[in-house]
Amino acid sequence: MGRQIEVTELILRDAHQSLMATRMAMEDMVPVCEDLDNAGYWSLECWGGATYDACIRYLNEDPWERLRTFRKLMPKTRLQMLLRGQNLLGYRHYEDGVVERFCDKAAENGMDVFRIFDALNDLRNLKTAVDAVRRTGKEAQGTICYTVSPVHTTEAFVEMAQRLKDLGVDSICIKDMAALLKPQPAYELVRGIKETCGEDTRVHLHCHATTGVTFVSMMKAIEAGCDVVDTSISSLSLGSGHNPTESLVEMLDGTGYTTRLDLERIRPVRDHFAEVRKRYRHFMSDFTVIDTDIFESQIPGGMLSNMENQLKGQGAGDRVQEVMEEVPRVRADSGYPPLVTPSSQIVGTQAVFNVLMGRYKTMTSEFADLMLGYYGSTFGDKNPEVLTQAEAQQQKPAITGRPADLLEPEWDQLRATAAALEGFDGSDEDVLTYAMFPQVSTKFFKTRHEGPKTLAKDPEASRVTEPPAPASGKSGDADKAAK
Amino acid sequence: MGRQIEVTELILRDAHQSLMATRMAMEDMVPVCEDLDNAGYWSLECWGGATYDACIRYLNEDPWERLRTFRKLMPKTRLQMLLRGQNLLGYRHYEDGVVERFCDKAAENGMDVFRIFDALNDLRNLKTAVDAVRRTGKEAQGTICYTVSPVHTTEAFVEMAQRLKDLGVDSICIKDMAALLKPQPAYELVRGIKETCGEDTRVHLHCHATTGVTFVSMMKAIEAGCDVVDTSISSLSLGSGHNPTESLVEMLDGTGYTTRLDLERIRPVRDHFAEVRKRYRHFMSDFTVIDTDIFESQIPGGMLSNMENQLKGQGAGDRVQEVMEEVPRVRADSGYPPLVTPSSQIVGTQAVFNVLMGRYKTMTSEFADLMLGYYGSTFGDKNPEVLTQAEAQQQKPAITGRPADLLEPEWDQLRATAAALEGFDGSDEDVLTYAMFPQVSTKFFKTRHEGPKTLAKDPEASRVTEPPAPASGKSGDADKAAK
Ligand SMILES: [Co+2]
Ligand SMILES: [Co+2]
Repeated sequence: MGRQIEVTELILRDAHQSLMATRMAMEDMVPVCEDLDNAGYWSLECWGGATYDACIRYLNEDPWERLRTFRKLMPKTRLQMLLRGQNLLGYRHYEDGVVERFCDKAAENGMDVFRIFDALNDLRNLKTAVDAVRRTGKEAQGTICYTVSPVHTTEAFVEMAQRLKDLGVDSICIKDMAALLKPQPAYELVRGIKETCGEDTRVHLHCHATTGVTFVSMMKAIEAGCDVVDTSISSLSLGSGHNPTESLVEMLDGTGYTTRLDLERIRPVRDHFAEVRKRYRHFMSDFTVIDTDIFESQIPGGMLSNMENQLKGQGAGDRVQEVMEEVPRVRADSGYPPLVTPSSQIVGTQAVFNVLMGRYKTMTSEFADLMLGYYGSTFGDKNPEVLTQAEAQQQKPAITGRPADLLEPEWDQLRATAAALEGFDGSDEDVLTYAMFPQVSTKFFKTRHEGPKTLAKDPEASRVTEPPAPASGKSGDADKAAK
Repeated sequence: MGRQIEVTELILRDAHQSLMATRMAMEDMVPVCEDLDNAGYWSLECWGGATYDACIRYLNEDPWERLRTFRKLMPKTRLQMLLRGQNLLGYRHYEDGVVERFCDKAAENGMDVFRIFDALNDLRNLKTAVDAVRRTGKEAQGTICYTVSPVHTTEAFVEMAQRLKDLGVDSICIKDMAALLKPQPAYELVRGIKETCGEDTRVHLHCHATTGVTFVSMMKAIEAGCDVVDTSISSLSLGSGHNPTESLVEMLDGTGYTTRLDLERIRPVRDHFAEVRKRYRHFMSDFTVIDTDIFESQIPGGMLSNMENQLKGQGAGDRVQEVMEEVPRVRADSGYPPLVTPSSQIVGTQAVFNVLMGRYKTMTSEFADLMLGYYGSTFGDKNPEVLTQAEAQQQKPAITGRPADLLEPEWDQLRATAAALEGFDGSDEDVLTYAMFPQVSTKFFKTRHEGPKTLAKDPEASRVTEPPAPASGKSGDADKAAK
């Protein structure tokens, strides 16, 4: 008892990513930076793949300039980002030189804490980024993507935490993007990490609110020794977003746990975003308050609607139930990948194909690559029959090594190609933007001089004229859309 | 560990009262009754003051017929109601004979559990109802209205629980209508009651979700020994409503606590109300996800908007802050009443008067009556100066006895007056309806033969053409409006 609990505020990144399709313009964040910087947070999460993508795709805003502005406006508090390991902020593996360059540049532009994850929990996909961040002297946080499966036991996750420690990470994050982490498992997982990795191992908890249980899990994690928890200020909280910051402060009252947060500083931020929210109503989904179906189906809401759309496109909208029953089998066959981007799409699409065309009669090349280890290794073993089929189809062998080891140095080529683009400014930052989003950046470089634009609307106009948009931004294939 | 936690489902009463101004028509509830009856609930809350009021005021529906229909459609599960002690379902104290008649009739029509409360926590206002219910053989549940003040300590509430036990109640309910109950106080209060009143005292917890902390409080209450908790199925949950039923089931997974609930039965009910909800959108407030201001201000959201409206009506909309600072003083002067109906309105209006006209320069007759004990006694002492002033203004003495002791038998007179009304059907039930809502019932008896009507709308029409309505139904003074 009597411990001080630290808090990471998510409102500048994951909150609007989860609730308003990542569309918030920088002009809507600038006014609250001073209050946020003085509110007593351990860190302010403000950068990641989807925000970077949305900047150049929708907002005509340079994401590096956004980072520098945050740094300038919030000098006192750690800035934090979410990094997809060897994928950086993009959708493929990058060669180590590019990964190192990215980490250097992000640190140089003001980033303090790098939360590094891999969708498959393959530590080899984290190692280069962890090493690169550590060389900059900034914090490299190792991340466990939480999921539920026969092979994702508390013991397996605790062992993964220990291996992250061995890799040299400064702290451990439990990342529960699907709100699957229930109170008792939360307690056991945090306790297990503390007991195995040492009580002085700083443990962070990131969970979404979707299923309604994770605020209780947060309390249990704190009781088990969790040091830092992620929340979002109430006016952009709950739903598929996060548990509310103010409620955390109140929840701990009298428990002996305290925070350093100053609610007087948080209130104006809350009021500000309550107004901002109205102007982005057309990007907010009609998501109702709570969704606990995932506990039964194991299928995240976004993945389910993707599969439904695919089925409808094939005139097979009535076969959802079959596909839902196929997903667990496909997941088992592929070694129980966590169902997050990109594995959720890969597994979901294969399940649809299996139902429509017969089991593994047609294999997507992405699913075959997943089977063959080109995304990395999984906690579970692969089904050997399906593996053989994948090898035959792809005409290439399964690999057991690190996927990025297959890549040749690519920085010079990336710079040369970027240099030829209209509007390229010659910086390494621009090369990185090009590397991660080749098509979108080509267009962005041309229009950058026009300056940032906003997609916010007058709330009354938005209310009356707009049907609600789906929360996930779908806008063609170019470099995949911001999620 | 290993205890079975029982659940009361609120979706037929408090959920739509809290989220859609109590307007839900019976036709929207009938289709789910069979599933609810088979889902494994300890009880189904389905009747109370606001639903009774809304039936005759807005829905042209006989509330007694609604009760009999529920009884017929849900034969296996306890039906539960909320009863305002000596006020029954109305807005004044009734003479004991009327109270007894009401309890007899409710039991006879199928009610099993009577949750009996008094807004001031004055047990003398509960005694007649408790005795009457016990004589019917049904369950009399004694209720603690939870609030926060210097005199509302855990010890004071535990002592109140013991006095409720001494009164003969079958169980104790902690009722937290303002979502003020934090986890640690929840634990201490339940533990205190169990240790003082006996571990076999059945403790129920009713809390709203408004502040975002009470789901954690529910977990802590369970750990402290709480036996039955109140939840609402997710499609009508959260906001100023309640914590979601499905999330409770999932939250307990692995903790050793279990429920008897069958999620297979609950899912169709959830899907049904997700659709119903859309057709009542025009009655739902724009309440955002979380409101923690009450922890600072001690002023419930509904009370605050009432005061703001009063101030605006006086052209003094800029003096809200002064009034908010006056409320705690007025509350202290009047002995710290819990801020619920009717004390919240009485204290709030007096605070407005104090700011606009000088402190206690003008006293409302309701506030004077509260000071003089005509609503009952409070946990705290009254300010003697203000008390003297109230006596002088009202030209009547302070009382220390039970308010209802001042009343003469009134049943025969009520029946005689009701008998003269057009459409009166001769039943005791109709007399009771007239007694509690004299004006509204007069109109209702006349139109009853036309049958129930619904205020639901086609969701698309509702979305495009209707501005959001305030959640609290205001429609003139007749017998006060349904809240
Ligand atoms: Co997240
Ligand atoms: Co309630």
